[in-house]
Amino acid sequence: MARQGTLQVAVVGTGKMGADHVRRVQEVISGARVTAVVDVDAERAKDVAARIDGCTAYSDPAAAMAAADVDAVLIASPGPAHEAALLTAFEHDLPVLCEKPLTPDAASALRVLEAEQKLGRRRVQVGFMRRYDAEYMKLKSLLNTGQLGRPLMLHNRHRNLASPPGWRSEMLINDSVVHEMDVTRWLLGQEITAVTVLRPTPSANAPEGVQDPQFVVFETDGGTIVDVEIFVNCGFGYQVQAEVVCERGTARIGDGHAMVTNMAGRWGGTIIQDYIERFADAYDREVQAWVDATRRGEVVGPSVWDGYAVAAVCEAGVRALEEGGRVAVELVERPALYDISRSPG
Amino acid sequence: MARQGTLQVAVVGTGKMGADHVRRVQEVISGARVTAVVDVDAERAKDVAARIDGCTAYSDPAAAMAAADVDAVLIASPGPAHEAALLTAFEHDLPVLCEKPLTPDAASALRVLEAEQKLGRRRVQVGFMRRYDAEYMKLKSLLNTGQLGRPLMLHNRHRNLASPPGWRSEMLINDSVVHEMDVTRWLLGQEITAVTVLRPTPSANAPEGVQDPQFVVFETDGGTIVDVEIFVNCGFGYQVQAEVVCERGTARIGDGHAMVTNMAGRWGGTIIQDYIERFADAYDREVQAWVDATRRGEVVGPSVWDGYAVAAVCEAGVRALEEGGRVAVELVERPALYDISRSPG
Amino acid sequence: MARQGTLQVAVVGTGKMGADHVRRVQEVISGARVTAVVDVDAERAKDVAARIDGCTAYSDPAAAMAAADVDAVLIASPGPAHEAALLTAFEHDLPVLCEKPLTPDAASALRVLEAEQKLGRRRVQVGFMRRYDAEYMKLKSLLNTGQLGRPLMLHNRHRNLASPPGWRSEMLINDSVVHEMDVTRWLLGQEITAVTVLRPTPSANAPEGVQDPQFVVFETDGGTIVDVEIFVNCGFGYQVQAEVVCERGTARIGDGHAMVTNMAGRWGGTIIQDYIERFADAYDREVQAWVDATRRGEVVGPSVWDGYAVAAVCEAGVRALEEGGRVAVELVERPALYDISRSPG
Amino acid sequence: MARQGTLQVAVVGTGKMGADHVRRVQEVISGARVTAVVDVDAERAKDVAARIDGCTAYSDPAAAMAAADVDAVLIASPGPAHEAALLTAFEHDLPVLCEKPLTPDAASALRVLEAEQKLGRRRVQVGFMRRYDAEYMKLKSLLNTGQLGRPLMLHNRHRNLASPPGWRSEMLINDSVVHEMDVTRWLLGQEITAVTVLRPTPSANAPEGVQDPQFVVFETDGGTIVDVEIFVNCGFGYQVQAEVVCERGTARIGDGHAMVTNMAGRWGGTIIQDYIERFADAYDREVQAWVDATRRGEVVGPSVWDGYAVAAVCEAGVRALEEGGRVAVELVERPALYDISRSPG
Repeated sequence: MARQGTLQVAVVGTGKMGADHVRRVQEVISGARVTAVVDVDAERAKDVAARIDGCTAYSDPAAAMAAADVDAVLIASPGPAHEAALLTAFEHDLPVLCEKPLTPDAASALRVLEAEQKLGRRRVQVGFMRRYDAEYMKLKSLLNTGQLGRPLMLHNRHRNLASPPGWRSEMLINDSVVHEMDVTRWLLGQEITAVTVLRPTPSANAPEGVQDPQFVVFETDGGTIVDVEIFVNCGFGYQVQAEVVCERGTARIGDGHAMVTNMAGRWGGTIIQDYIERFADAYDREVQAWVDATRRGEVVGPSVWDGYAVAAVCEAGVRALEEGGRVAVELVERPALYDISRSPG
Repeated sequence: MARQGTLQVAVVGTGKMGADHVRRVQEVISGARVTAVVDVDAERAKDVAARIDGCTAYSDPAAAMAAADVDAVLIASPGPAHEAALLTAFEHDLPVLCEKPLTPDAASALRVLEAEQKLGRRRVQVGFMRRYDAEYMKLKSLLNTGQLGRPLMLHNRHRNLASPPGWRSEMLINDSVVHEMDVTRWLLGQEITAVTVLRPTPSANAPEGVQDPQFVVFETDGGTIVDVEIFVNCGFGYQVQAEVVCERGTARIGDGHAMVTNMAGRWGGTIIQDYIERFADAYDREVQAWVDATRRGEVVGPSVWDGYAVAAVCEAGVRALEEGGRVAVELVERPALYDISRSPG
Repeated sequence: MARQGTLQVAVVGTGKMGADHVRRVQEVISGARVTAVVDVDAERAKDVAARIDGCTAYSDPAAAMAAADVDAVLIASPGPAHEAALLTAFEHDLPVLCEKPLTPDAASALRVLEAEQKLGRRRVQVGFMRRYDAEYMKLKSLLNTGQLGRPLMLHNRHRNLASPPGWRSEMLINDSVVHEMDVTRWLLGQEITAVTVLRPTPSANAPEGVQDPQFVVFETDGGTIVDVEIFVNCGFGYQVQAEVVCERGTARIGDGHAMVTNMAGRWGGTIIQDYIERFADAYDREVQAWVDATRRGEVVGPSVWDGYAVAAVCEAGVRALEEGGRVAVELVERPALYDISRSPG
Repeated sequence: MARQGTLQVAVVGTGKMGADHVRRVQEVISGARVTAVVDVDAERAKDVAARIDGCTAYSDPAAAMAAADVDAVLIASPGPAHEAALLTAFEHDLPVLCEKPLTPDAASALRVLEAEQKLGRRRVQVGFMRRYDAEYMKLKSLLNTGQLGRPLMLHNRHRNLASPPGWRSEMLINDSVVHEMDVTRWLLGQEITAVTVLRPTPSANAPEGVQDPQFVVFETDGGTIVDVEIFVNCGFGYQVQAEVVCERGTARIGDGHAMVTNMAGRWGGTIIQDYIERFADAYDREVQAWVDATRRGEVVGPSVWDGYAVAAVCEAGVRALEEGGRVAVELVERPALYDISRSPG
């Protein structure tokens, strides 16, 4: 319990996700407080800052990171702004929790990777929060015991109630399946080597021109076959399920069987409606883990390598979606800096 | 309840499946009795016949089918003997329940198809017994109501405890996935147009040289994507599961949640160990349906067209397994004789 | 498979249950046929007989039992008519399957018990069909293995959609909880020694003046405490559940998890609506077991002692309902004829 | 988000529960820190204080409560010490979170009740943490919607792996069933009016002379019947389940179906082994709710009235266990101070 003082955090981006992280740091977790908020919309930043004791509003991330009362940075701005914010944080040698995606494509992710390597030590935890979900953690623990033997297949279901306005076919890969990419790599400890995207006739409930659902297949360098059903207009709720099939058994998570009712001829329960509810604890645990590690002077959790590798798989996935057939994933060699285990904590 | 006399059945083949059908006709279902048993092993036929009042043993199917006390034929001999037995039954104009496969390949199935067409009416019910399983029937009923909307994807799991001696990679397609081929066509009312087989690194528990598990993907003429996990050495039991994903919801069968125990730190239940136990009621219902229809002078259930179409998909599947990539399925045009709905009874 | 000829059955009573048994014997099970039907309503008997080859209609049970083509009797008439029919069957030395209740009260059941004792051998199987339900059979098998240790408590839920017109408070004991009385005695191999009935404020959906639900507690001579929730106007379906709590674990049946859907914000399944659907297989198995045993010259399954003991518990239950508090159950000493195990088959 | 400074908490009692609360305040929740720890074992207090910046050790609660850097008190000392600590806190007008039991018996609880009434406002939140469990909260929310109609019965299961050394029969009531007493009152919004305790033959795994399991029945002033299976040596894990049966349906919590495996002939999951794991989130939420309310200047959650009412039910329960039969619960009239809703936050 030998803890240093409270961690002073700058939150970059105060949209939906950023505002939620501000609330989380201030009201939910221990050991940190928000001393700076940054938004290109200066009014929005001021509004948020005004409700917090000792918090300053900025419109420029660099100014916030230069402030004396900022020990660490939480980046929750839109993806295209991440690269610049990350490189600025590196200049100030500040530890960062960077929401996913690390950056919008593999090339920019590679530049961040190289910049962090120059620092010679990890500074960034990437916001792949499923690694902090209690069920995924149990699943990984079970796999790590070896009781089930080697994983052979991994089946995933990822369903959203409905897509937001403006959603396009490639966003099912880049914004949704991106989570299964990270889960696959983390759960199995394997890299994804190829992607195939199968296209059922779209649902009548999908927006005009959007390929929804999609059925995505990954191959890995460990010989595991991974399939992902992504269906962002399923119409009944938010559902994330995974089943690992191993040599001596299987394990499945995501059934969500909390309260069971009997009513009007049916037994069963409610399906939660969004990821905020499903992964609320995972977000809390993720940010708490980042604060705890930072206060210990460590960096843990998903790395820039993870952010880069997933960006490369996304690019292959989008090509597979557009061109049909199987698309191989190309990665640079993994730097020694990222050799250590990818598991959190 | 206006029923004619008891149906007199010749059972061709008295191996494991044939002997079980003899028991079923004699002891389980109503309205039929076994008056002839046929086996190339004359001693085995005699042993079976000796235990049944009024039952004659034969070693030649043609002789049994010519007997005055035979009204109908149940073929349970090995697949390569089916074509000759079917053609002989056609000569005697006898209704037939033919165990799957109809015949071992698409070419021979096509010859049977043509022979039955010449008769001008259906004589054969093919033994795809999953159509008679209570859970599959419920699933089809639900789909037929239209509540869930159009099917977009169908996920299947098919797991066996362990493969028998001599099992080879292509048998996972021909003997196991063959059931999901029929289920896909029957549940969806669509033909399969292409097959892809993905090959995870085989389980250490698979026999040397056998590709087990396999992950098989079907495309259909209705735009549905179907995936099948086939794993015949899963080591924990027999498990058949299916989940249809439709425009407005999903439906899943095969969880098998009968009795739940709490014991020694675990909750849960037993997994049944073989298909005999899992599909016992389906076999009973299938043979009863055949007997009932035959006594009414009708032929219902899976047709020779179904047997032929599945044989063609099997051939494509084995090629996909061996050559990699996607293999298209080629079918002749469906004769008018088989235009009617494929559902049983 | 050494079987004698087809069993010729007289069915006494052709109301809902009797007509269903006629259908069962004729169309579902093997080895028996209906050669006589009896009903005080002569027209109804004639209608049923007219639809069956070789079946004669009677209005007097004694006449049917005297017929040359009757080997066995299935009694499905109203309870008050059972005693006379049973005694007549004893005179003709005919094996009987008698629907529950054996007779309407303990005194008349005791007279039947004494009459059967005079015969010196069992002639009657009483229609407690839950003993033939697959889930209850699994539960008993598990208990019999001893893996769970000694039973300490048994929790039961028994819910009906809605009570028929004219249902009265004591009928919840005599017509519904009667099944849990038999299940308790059979599963545990113990006699019930006392009954307490607790009365929640009745549901607004219960008919005026009917105490529904009731919460019934049994004590047994083995020191087990048994509770039964009986709720005949639950409004959502038919549900029968049981959980045995033993020294080393628990086992529960009746969850009914066949097909699971996701739809409109809810996961789950349908609840069946009546006992006909829930216990269809149990009825089939019960009558088949009776036919099989009778053809072997044996009598198996629930005995007249079971019918008598349950009648005595019902009487205590109704007194407990009416008077409040705990009511002890009084039984005569069990005759040696009924010493053998109570399990079917 | 208008929050005042960090709440400075004195934790009284540094045993298992107290130490866990110290950890919780320091490392898990936001807005509070531990500035004082109190234990009659001065060495133990010093050890705990030494690991926390700015924390002082005391052996006398009164001294800690008089300190300038103490804003609020968390009492986690043994039950017999609660009354004195509470009265001292009242003298200093400090808000208190008092672990259950409020005090060891109804008479002492009544004295605390009277003392708080003299203050004229609530100062105490009692540690009935099940009210903060996500599943119980969902169950209460559902009941509050009125969809299910009025509650008629409430079935509870409460099972522990094994009892600690020295456990006695009455502790099953006072330390275990006490939770179901509070849950009953809170969920239903009704007072318990009578208790009956049924005694199965004890398990062979219960310590010599301990009545385990027990089957406890509550009657309420709302006409609901509540049953509780308490079994503290069940041998397989920690399990808390509740099913409310209402006029139009039922709702059940506590199945604990997180991860489902197939392995070695069985499907299912692990059962957690203790209440620390099962109710970890509830404890976190409870203490966070107390800190948040205290910082707002409010007192919420279970009140001294709840602590007193439960103490009175415990006394009736122990008498029912020892004497047999039904024991009525006697309560003083509820003071106006406690008229408001009992639900948290």
